[in-house]
Amino acid sequence: MSILTRNTALAGVLDTHLAALAADEGLAPQTIRDGIEGGTMVLLGNPSHPSLRPLLVGQPSRVKVNANIGTSPLCNNPDREIEKLAAALGAGADTVMDLSIAGDLLAIRKGMLAACPLPLGTVPLYSVAQKYLDKGKDPAGMDPEELFAEIEMQAEQGVDFMTVHCGLTRRGAEWATEGGRVLGIVSRGGSILARWMRKNGKENPLLEQYDRILEIARKHNVTLSLGDGLRPGAGADAGDAAQWDEVMMLGRLAKAGLAEGVQCMIEGPGHVPMHEVEAQIVGIKKLTNNAPLYVLGPLTIDSSPGYDHIAGAIGGAIGVRAGVDFLCYLTPAEHLTLPTIEDVKAGVMASRIAAQAGEVALGRRHALEREAGMSQARMALDWDGMKRCALDPEMVDARRGEHRNEEECAMCGKFCAVKMLRDDPQGTL
Amino acid sequence: MSILTRNTALAGVLDTHLAALAADEGLAPQTIRDGIEGGTMVLLGNPSHPSLRPLLVGQPSRVKVNANIGTSPLCNNPDREIEKLAAALGAGADTVMDLSIAGDLLAIRKGMLAACPLPLGTVPLYSVAQKYLDKGKDPAGMDPEELFAEIEMQAEQGVDFMTVHCGLTRRGAEWATEGGRVLGIVSRGGSILARWMRKNGKENPLLEQYDRILEIARKHNVTLSLGDGLRPGAGADAGDAAQWDEVMMLGRLAKAGLAEGVQCMIEGPGHVPMHEVEAQIVGIKKLTNNAPLYVLGPLTIDSSPGYDHIAGAIGGAIGVRAGVDFLCYLTPAEHLTLPTIEDVKAGVMASRIAAQAGEVALGRRHALEREAGMSQARMALDWDGMKRCALDPEMVDARRGEHRNEEECAMCGKFCAVKMLRDDPQGTL
Repeated sequence: MSILTRNTALAGVLDTHLAALAADEGLAPQTIRDGIEGGTMVLLGNPSHPSLRPLLVGQPSRVKVNANIGTSPLCNNPDREIEKLAAALGAGADTVMDLSIAGDLLAIRKGMLAACPLPLGTVPLYSVAQKYLDKGKDPAGMDPEELFAEIEMQAEQGVDFMTVHCGLTRRGAEWATEGGRVLGIVSRGGSILARWMRKNGKENPLLEQYDRILEIARKHNVTLSLGDGLRPGAGADAGDAAQWDEVMMLGRLAKAGLAEGVQCMIEGPGHVPMHEVEAQIVGIKKLTNNAPLYVLGPLTIDSSPGYDHIAGAIGGAIGVRAGVDFLCYLTPAEHLTLPTIEDVKAGVMASRIAAQAGEVALGRRHALEREAGMSQARMALDWDGMKRCALDPEMVDARRGEHRNEEECAMCGKFCAVKMLRDDPQGTL
Repeated sequence: MSILTRNTALAGVLDTHLAALAADEGLAPQTIRDGIEGGTMVLLGNPSHPSLRPLLVGQPSRVKVNANIGTSPLCNNPDREIEKLAAALGAGADTVMDLSIAGDLLAIRKGMLAACPLPLGTVPLYSVAQKYLDKGKDPAGMDPEELFAEIEMQAEQGVDFMTVHCGLTRRGAEWATEGGRVLGIVSRGGSILARWMRKNGKENPLLEQYDRILEIARKHNVTLSLGDGLRPGAGADAGDAAQWDEVMMLGRLAKAGLAEGVQCMIEGPGHVPMHEVEAQIVGIKKLTNNAPLYVLGPLTIDSSPGYDHIAGAIGGAIGVRAGVDFLCYLTPAEHLTLPTIEDVKAGVMASRIAAQAGEVALGRRHALEREAGMSQARMALDWDGMKRCALDPEMVDARRGEHRNEEECAMCGKFCAVKMLRDDPQGTL
């Protein structure tokens, strides 16, 4: 039975928005239907999310960019997070994840759902763990029922996609922490679940009771973002057995989800040296049946704190060319602190640049048209045209500043190479 | 006859500094000698540059980063340019090019040579053209003798490397401007010479009298940076016949230079879509006998004004892995205005990240050691160790700000994945 038959919530969202999605993506409606049926595209959109503009993820639809925001114990200001949400949307993010781990998480999420016309994602495990950590208690003491209740409540609230670390096994967690890795487990969700499994001597409840998650997800058309709890946290750890063990599980879970009428994405690395990025992406796509791949980076070096958006853009661009569908941004704050509003904008822009570089390499029409428009405008010294084609139009005026009414830029002035050859050499410059 | 026999200035610099260079680069002295003799490495160092620390360019020596600074007609503040020079050195640039095109160029260059203990590069053509443009005259009216006199004067002044567009031919300039390209010629030097050739109906004097340049360069051990006047200015123009025609000439000129005892580097693109970068680099290296390759970017997209340092870092990283030896930075100001001091720092850092990503991929020991140190420090939550391994150590403290004395970062706080599994699961977190 097809996913659109089984998942009536999804079918309803698709029926309402298919024409607009097809026009926006420049794809035939049948291509979109086929992608969703085959599990290579997902349509993010929980019918309970008010005023939502649903979004396709999965090539050949446009590569999308996510911005992570949310409170932390040391930087807990919900109003500031709403400002970051606006900054992310303003910079061109396609989705936002609320990763809040401090304060009234229910109220914060409600505020974000209301403020965000684009799909919103969460990690429900954080809410459960927070209840323990806030009281100084060990989250390894949690009852799995709390987790399922949280997932259901967030689905009813309208969350469009959720990270669930269902592919993490006792074996995988052991492999990742027995000493072979430099950096063990760096996923917060992965480390909490690994601690729970160790303490309780039991298998991951999100894996053992995956069917319960599927039932909730199908009912609300929540797209499962199958989390990579064992993603490498150092370039040296990339591609080890622990990572691939989880990837293989994610592939099996995505297949089972599709069969049960649930949309699934795959989360990917992480810290990966540049020469291993393509191999990682190709391998993950293969093992996960070409389900939409959602990566954090990949971050090509470990030594760029303060500039991880750049090291991540290098990996992201290579990743998109190799098949990545969805880029989670990294900001200049990564590995150091919670991002500021400026960091959020910088992170979104860096990921959009990576997506554009990858899509140009793939020959995607919308990407090539933007490039061609920019180059033609440059040849004509048409600054309005350059603004229209720039990934950040406002930046063009902002940086030209006092020189914005000159024909040439302030770098070259009368040394302008374009002007030098535009006029007849016998004439004036 | 070997280059070290013919070029006594070079031989002198090498003798004085070989031991230090070998130690600094982690290379055997013979590897350095062989690289210089074979033309795959150059030693930047004009004996007339006071207090200079000479520098090797050419893999397997460390990949180097250059920062372009200098006045422009619309932003003419020589003191500010000296501040930018200090900012570039502080951020870890290996060389600086003075591209000033406004003001008293002789005095500016003198000030920079005195302030810069690292190799300084120039484009002598700019000084000649400026004399014409400042008076509202056409630089196509210049006498080639002025150009040779300028090159000689700058060599005597102590300039370590000079961009000379000797490979630009009338045929190449015609091919680049007859209509097949979106953006014609975007190199300032290239466009001035093309205009001169058109107006005068003569071949490029830098090509026709290359032997005169070689004589000056050999005497002062000026390394020739054979300029790419026809580099693509749009992704769509990359790899066309005009570009390759010039590359082939550059290869012949580099070979002739080596035979005459002159060190040569090759300048490379420019705007190149990501999927063409490796092919470009491999092709250029082959056609230029593996002479050190010095690239501007490559800039993988055209549509990122305000963020070209990021689009350039993507191409730079891929380029380094494919054989690039020397990265010329792009700053956030590229295509818009003259860089500020902050832009200079951002540009140097982006290029250093690209170099590190590429060198990690190539397995270079110094790069891998930095990565390993960072990851070990992260596992130990050793913030001093992280600072030591960071490409920008100051940034670590600056971004942690008020939370710099916490054990965890302000992004995760008590959700720290490392701490979650560091302690016994039965114990406290």
